[in-house]
Amino acid sequence: MLKTLPKEQNVNLQNRARLLVKCPDKPGIVSVLSTFLFKYEANILESSQYSSDPENGTFFIRIEYNCENLPEKALAMEKDFKNIADEFNMEFKFQYRNQRQRTAIYVSKELHCLLELLWEWQNGDLDTDIAVVISNHEDAREIVESYGIPFHYLPANKDIRKEVEAKQIRLMEEYDVDLLILARYMQILTPEFVNHFENRIINIHHSFLPAFIGANPYERAHRRGVKLIGATSHYVTNDLDEGPIIEQDVERVDHRDDVQTLKKIGRKIERRVLAKAVKWHLENRIIVENNKTIVFH
Amino acid sequence: MLKTLPKEQNVNLQNRARLLVKCPDKPGIVSVLSTFLFKYEANILESSQYSSDPENGTFFIRIEYNCENLPEKALAMEKDFKNIADEFNMEFKFQYRNQRQRTAIYVSKELHCLLELLWEWQNGDLDTDIAVVISNHEDAREIVESYGIPFHYLPANKDIRKEVEAKQIRLMEEYDVDLLILARYMQILTPEFVNHFENRIINIHHSFLPAFIGANPYERAHRRGVKLIGATSHYVTNDLDEGPIIEQDVERVDHRDDVQTLKKIGRKIERRVLAKAVKWHLENRIIVENNKTIVFH
Amino acid sequence: MLKTLPKEQNVNLQNRARLLVKCPDKPGIVSVLSTFLFKYEANILESSQYSSDPENGTFFIRIEYNCENLPEKALAMEKDFKNIADEFNMEFKFQYRNQRQRTAIYVSKELHCLLELLWEWQNGDLDTDIAVVISNHEDAREIVESYGIPFHYLPANKDIRKEVEAKQIRLMEEYDVDLLILARYMQILTPEFVNHFENRIINIHHSFLPAFIGANPYERAHRRGVKLIGATSHYVTNDLDEGPIIEQDVERVDHRDDVQTLKKIGRKIERRVLAKAVKWHLENRIIVENNKTIVFH
Amino acid sequence: MLKTLPKEQNVNLQNRARLLVKCPDKPGIVSVLSTFLFKYEANILESSQYSSDPENGTFFIRIEYNCENLPEKALAMEKDFKNIADEFNMEFKFQYRNQRQRTAIYVSKELHCLLELLWEWQNGDLDTDIAVVISNHEDAREIVESYGIPFHYLPANKDIRKEVEAKQIRLMEEYDVDLLILARYMQILTPEFVNHFENRIINIHHSFLPAFIGANPYERAHRRGVKLIGATSHYVTNDLDEGPIIEQDVERVDHRDDVQTLKKIGRKIERRVLAKAVKWHLENRIIVENNKTIVFH
Repeated sequence: MLKTLPKEQNVNLQNRARLLVKCPDKPGIVSVLSTFLFKYEANILESSQYSSDPENGTFFIRIEYNCENLPEKALAMEKDFKNIADEFNMEFKFQYRNQRQRTAIYVSKELHCLLELLWEWQNGDLDTDIAVVISNHEDAREIVESYGIPFHYLPANKDIRKEVEAKQIRLMEEYDVDLLILARYMQILTPEFVNHFENRIINIHHSFLPAFIGANPYERAHRRGVKLIGATSHYVTNDLDEGPIIEQDVERVDHRDDVQTLKKIGRKIERRVLAKAVKWHLENRIIVENNKTIVFH
Repeated sequence: MLKTLPKEQNVNLQNRARLLVKCPDKPGIVSVLSTFLFKYEANILESSQYSSDPENGTFFIRIEYNCENLPEKALAMEKDFKNIADEFNMEFKFQYRNQRQRTAIYVSKELHCLLELLWEWQNGDLDTDIAVVISNHEDAREIVESYGIPFHYLPANKDIRKEVEAKQIRLMEEYDVDLLILARYMQILTPEFVNHFENRIINIHHSFLPAFIGANPYERAHRRGVKLIGATSHYVTNDLDEGPIIEQDVERVDHRDDVQTLKKIGRKIERRVLAKAVKWHLENRIIVENNKTIVFH
Repeated sequence: MLKTLPKEQNVNLQNRARLLVKCPDKPGIVSVLSTFLFKYEANILESSQYSSDPENGTFFIRIEYNCENLPEKALAMEKDFKNIADEFNMEFKFQYRNQRQRTAIYVSKELHCLLELLWEWQNGDLDTDIAVVISNHEDAREIVESYGIPFHYLPANKDIRKEVEAKQIRLMEEYDVDLLILARYMQILTPEFVNHFENRIINIHHSFLPAFIGANPYERAHRRGVKLIGATSHYVTNDLDEGPIIEQDVERVDHRDDVQTLKKIGRKIERRVLAKAVKWHLENRIIVENNKTIVFH
Repeated sequence: MLKTLPKEQNVNLQNRARLLVKCPDKPGIVSVLSTFLFKYEANILESSQYSSDPENGTFFIRIEYNCENLPEKALAMEKDFKNIADEFNMEFKFQYRNQRQRTAIYVSKELHCLLELLWEWQNGDLDTDIAVVISNHEDAREIVESYGIPFHYLPANKDIRKEVEAKQIRLMEEYDVDLLILARYMQILTPEFVNHFENRIINIHHSFLPAFIGANPYERAHRRGVKLIGATSHYVTNDLDEGPIIEQDVERVDHRDDVQTLKKIGRKIERRVLAKAVKWHLENRIIVENNKTIVFH
């Protein structure tokens, strides 16, 4: 059932692209970039910038542009841009809208985050190809396969972690995956795995970090008697629950809510917080700097 | 200036009271309490109850009632109630609305929380007599005295803590204070002082506890890159920032907000969170149990 | 797929019930009710009351209780209660937790509200039997039938409204439906139909009522340039979008959001607002009075 | 009392300015603007743009920049800019940070919005000189004069509206006022007055517009039984409560809240919504287009 594919995007997507730049801040950067784009008759649709400090800081910009006949010009543009990049010491990336990023969703027994992602994706709200779903349980198979998405069951535990991760890395390569989404995947990842996908693994933690780092956050929130519970999506690093925070949200609770109720309320927060983080990543709105995120809304 | 007194409350306040009860849960408590009130022709205006567990739990109830000629009946009622209390093993309290609770506000150099409390009080929204303001700085004197409220300047630092607290306790007795409000009072209190006013000191902490316990929460929130900042009002205990949480709230921030901006946004959260906690305490809506609060809204 | 049934509720549900009462306010009501329940050894688990005005107002109470061997006692209790009800001029209702209310969901082409209800129901969060889904389109059939729920396709338009509604009423009887949920069902109902199910039809309107009553609220919100959009769940009456409001919520939008984006954001609000209203109705938390709702949280 | 002046801003404010541009959209605008600024060695600190439609739409940009020795260059820059403006058909404005905008606050008997503005201003959060406060009542005089701000009492009613407005216009000229803030000023303004200050009068309306346009919104919100109440700040036009909306916010209410309570809750919303709108106006973040606002956050 529900085999409907994501909605057709509007046809001119092949002329749409994003230019992402990071470099030492100094006057003239915007001038050079916008003059470059104008030379190729590109029209800037959206532009967001941030400087960590006008004096000696780092400059970040995200430009979304439309350019007639972009596929024919792209190669020349990229080559030409090299000169600017060298002069200003830029890190940069051209992201073409008709080259969809590919995602893998990792899930265990709780399916609410997976279902929310599938729902958003089916609505055309997540601009990605969901290449594969990986799970250490069979629970998600039926729903995933009903969307025509490959599902791989890989039982996991700490004794076989390395072998499992080796298989996972092979699968990520085979499916040509750009982004890994841990949608309540309840397994610890090794440093090797995490380093292999730097700033490319998004996790949802079921607390308002940095409160309740680690296991059983709802139980601990209940014990502490907090009046709001939350969820946090972040990039995974090798410090548990310490990676760059992408998005957080909270809901009000009170003394009558037991742990079970906190979990129910929490699931709703987790769903929307993870979906937002994934959406922003796919739209190249997130820059990681100093273990924090810049998010261009 | 602004010498306006709190608005006149409606005249029949002398017939209004609250009955607060805590006891082991078992069937029949509500029946006994409501029958008792009916016997004295009291009309229940508001009633809130909570049981930690229907089997062998603790039962809490807050009843607000109106009773014609209450001042003449109150003594007899209290005496009569003793029998019920003994039978059901109740802790209880009658709070009469025409006996206003008296508060002392403690403040240092940042005045925003003090100003909010004065503002709410002047509007008739805080049902209290503000008996005195205590500060280790002179900054608040002018505004406090303009309201006709006594202001005491008591310089404080860790070397003279005991002497200062002795003076403060004498002042609290002299002004017959029921509740102490730490409205950004930046001094550590000794265990002796805290024990002296158990569940009668409300503090505002400038973070979303238990995140950022201790000093400099906004600096640490900025460093961590959180996407929401918060404030927490709680009763003071001898575990720093670990007392029972009364109320919390948050506001959204982003990567452009420096520490100074976080503090500005935070001040708005602190103002409203502390004002709510104080209001609920004065309305006897808060019960402390197992280092958590039950708040009857 | 997803044929999992709602989670097993805890076993003693047969001893759980709710008593709902409405009557002219006067002293002694709580005493009489709680004494009545105590006589049958019922333990009050939750009790919420409201009086529109302590003098000559109307009194409302909702009591949830647990009573050993309730199925054997219920008949006697109800008969006994008649005397109290007569004396105090009460309207009342006993709702037994093991007698689940039965719902019908009406839907057109947009399925997000239906999916949210199915999702909540499957999680065990909606205490109802979804007896049937009715639609004037075929879009929902596959997903509905995958849950094992009967689906009826009834094409509708204004020319055949009466015949269609006659069929719908027969179906409601056949499926023994207590509550009708209009989950974005885009058909006007006749006064006869609405009167037939008074306070038993819940609708979701895609605006923050009373703003944008009627058609195309998102288009009109966009034209007006509002900074928040909302959704409203309400009981259906014969004044379009004027029925008693049960729940409302909003989300922030800005000048960059076109009508399409407003609709996407709006769908998320609609989902959660309708789900809450339905949940509260099924828990007998809502009382309708003077075209407004009292909701006991 | 409280005669403290707004905090000293950082010293280099004389080198800070904003350039605001509106013109028909076409490729190359950003390039031309940024190249122009670079020519004068200006460093772009913040840049926000919006296009109503990439094809044949209108383009808006707000650039905040820092430029060494700006006071010496400003005249030449403005003259030079004329050529660009002519070529691209631009409306534009240079706003220099050391030339503070001047505001007049209009108030009646309810002072909460005035107090919030004074509070924000005193904190250094409103970048303006409050030139004068105008009122048709004497209530605000003492507090206003305690800040050293001139206060003018101008009794007003519909019979003398024209004379009063003539005096007000003279005062606005005398005090060289850029922005008029209606902080709960309960008088209707004539079309002549409104036209005289087009897009320069900000009002706070005590409802979530377009719900409850006109008088007594809280009474009507109470009667309708809404579950959220709100406030709306907008530019004043000659259609009552129909001017471009700048900001809106809401708070949750329930059946127990009477009109008086709604007003209390509403005052808190009004305070923060008006303060935000004024702050954004003073930071030149708001553009009015087609009776809607673009707000660059």
